[in-house]
Amino acid sequence: MGISFNDVKEAQQRISKYLIKTPVLRLENLDEALGCRVYVKAECMQRTGAFKLRGALNRALSLSEEDLKKGLVCASSGNHGRAVAYVAKMLGTTATVVIPNSAPATKVEAIRALGAEVVQCEAAVRFEVAQKLCDEKKATLVPPYNDEYVMAGQGTAGLEIVEQCPEVDAVITPVSGGGLIGGVSTAVKGIKPEAKVYGAESEKLSRYSTSLAAGKIVTVPPSKTFADALLSQAPGSVCFPTVQKNVDGVVAVDESYMLQAWKLLITEGKLFSEPSSSIGMGAVLQGLIPVEEDENVCFLISGGNAGLDQLSVLM
Amino acid sequence: MGISFNDVKEAQQRISKYLIKTPVLRLENLDEALGCRVYVKAECMQRTGAFKLRGALNRALSLSEEDLKKGLVCASSGNHGRAVAYVAKMLGTTATVVIPNSAPATKVEAIRALGAEVVQCEAAVRFEVAQKLCDEKKATLVPPYNDEYVMAGQGTAGLEIVEQCPEVDAVITPVSGGGLIGGVSTAVKGIKPEAKVYGAESEKLSRYSTSLAAGKIVTVPPSKTFADALLSQAPGSVCFPTVQKNVDGVVAVDESYMLQAWKLLITEGKLFSEPSSSIGMGAVLQGLIPVEEDENVCFLISGGNAGLDQLSVLM
Repeated sequence: MGISFNDVKEAQQRISKYLIKTPVLRLENLDEALGCRVYVKAECMQRTGAFKLRGALNRALSLSEEDLKKGLVCASSGNHGRAVAYVAKMLGTTATVVIPNSAPATKVEAIRALGAEVVQCEAAVRFEVAQKLCDEKKATLVPPYNDEYVMAGQGTAGLEIVEQCPEVDAVITPVSGGGLIGGVSTAVKGIKPEAKVYGAESEKLSRYSTSLAAGKIVTVPPSKTFADALLSQAPGSVCFPTVQKNVDGVVAVDESYMLQAWKLLITEGKLFSEPSSSIGMGAVLQGLIPVEEDENVCFLISGGNAGLDQLSVLM
Repeated sequence: MGISFNDVKEAQQRISKYLIKTPVLRLENLDEALGCRVYVKAECMQRTGAFKLRGALNRALSLSEEDLKKGLVCASSGNHGRAVAYVAKMLGTTATVVIPNSAPATKVEAIRALGAEVVQCEAAVRFEVAQKLCDEKKATLVPPYNDEYVMAGQGTAGLEIVEQCPEVDAVITPVSGGGLIGGVSTAVKGIKPEAKVYGAESEKLSRYSTSLAAGKIVTVPPSKTFADALLSQAPGSVCFPTVQKNVDGVVAVDESYMLQAWKLLITEGKLFSEPSSSIGMGAVLQGLIPVEEDENVCFLISGGNAGLDQLSVLM
């Protein structure tokens, strides 16, 4: 179970020509507030506005031509859904995206605009519907995180961080099911074992900090959260062992610190991002991750698909 | 009158250690909308959130130690005022910033927070008040644009653009009094004469397009505008000859295109900026500046000091 450094290297060879190599930016204007030398990996500037493209691409490009032709399926109205739709378009195949009836019309339209077929259903049965569609079409399910190829694909962001910023001392990523942090930690530790890798999640859905403390996968109750890209209730079974092995800690952040960090990132860092992507900075503001003044800390800014109306919470 | 390429090179030697070398970012996600290969010089990520620091620094560092000790004075509640206050603090001298009574309290506080003395007066007499303060204190007036040192300082952004992006074919900057475009065009043409340099201003205050067409400085009537960092009614007398000599054109942009560009820059480019800074992209959206698909066009994003409440105009 889990992935190796080599899986991430192979993913990079497979997918990099389809990606934007997003910049690592040195944001000096945030140093004082965060108490360290601040870098960001701006995955909000990735195609589709989020890192999710990496994993979806690696899954799709690992298929045989024949299987790829049969299409991709996923269940997500968010960044993963956009990524799968975009990948299908780019690679000349079809995507079917299962979206809950409750999803906002703008999200449905964004995915349709990428050429995907949208199937709407009750939220509770969306994964069953997706699986059924896969069986019918002989298509490939692209899971949002619980898959070796997806996790290795997300890890390519970690390879780029260490290449673009070899002086990095610590990397901090948002955490949900564990695809991103599993991949990124494998990549970073593979090149620079002495660099720290931390994860940050909302204390309202503390699936990783709870599970890591228990030494096994624990499912937490659902909860309303502003971290609307970090909704999984449990670590992925494929991701958990990798995270357990590689990560220096996952902390559960009070959302008021996440929102404070989001405002800082936008108004002082000048990076337009979605709230979930600032949770790592929130963890540092809350004092949950130790950083020092002369330490080079790279925050992975996971996505930038916020609606302008969401900013009202910051005013 | 005007400045030479050498003035800008000297400015760079004088001021660069006090600046952030802001990134030139390749924003592929904007290529389709703008019809060219899009680059931005992210001066919104400069200290104080705008390019204005460059000119103020070059003015201050050109003074004798004795004169610098007597302090700096300016009349501006905006980015120039912040820049002068910041420079005074950084160089260990005093700043007095004259601000109209009508300025919002948040702007006054931001400048006070940088340690400057704030003098408030009626807007109509602010330049006289500033001059009187200079005479009393034997302090140095730092004009927002109409000064060789200020213009040469702003030009250092142009040097950086060509250094960071040697493949650049065209540079587009916002225009008001002419300090930025005068300096940047001198720098760009000095290194790469075949690169084009264009300016963009609001059609509500078309001081440069009107003056360039007339072949002499014309003052336009005051007007309400969303381009709230571009308020001068006439080209600066020091700037105009330099702009006339170096610039390939200044266009007057319908503000609806500027706002469309602002939304694009924030939501797709993921760069948080102030409305004025997107006017160059507005000019391209409106079809006023010719660009081609394979052309490397660098838009100078002049500042990022927007209030979140200003975004309501985009919703």
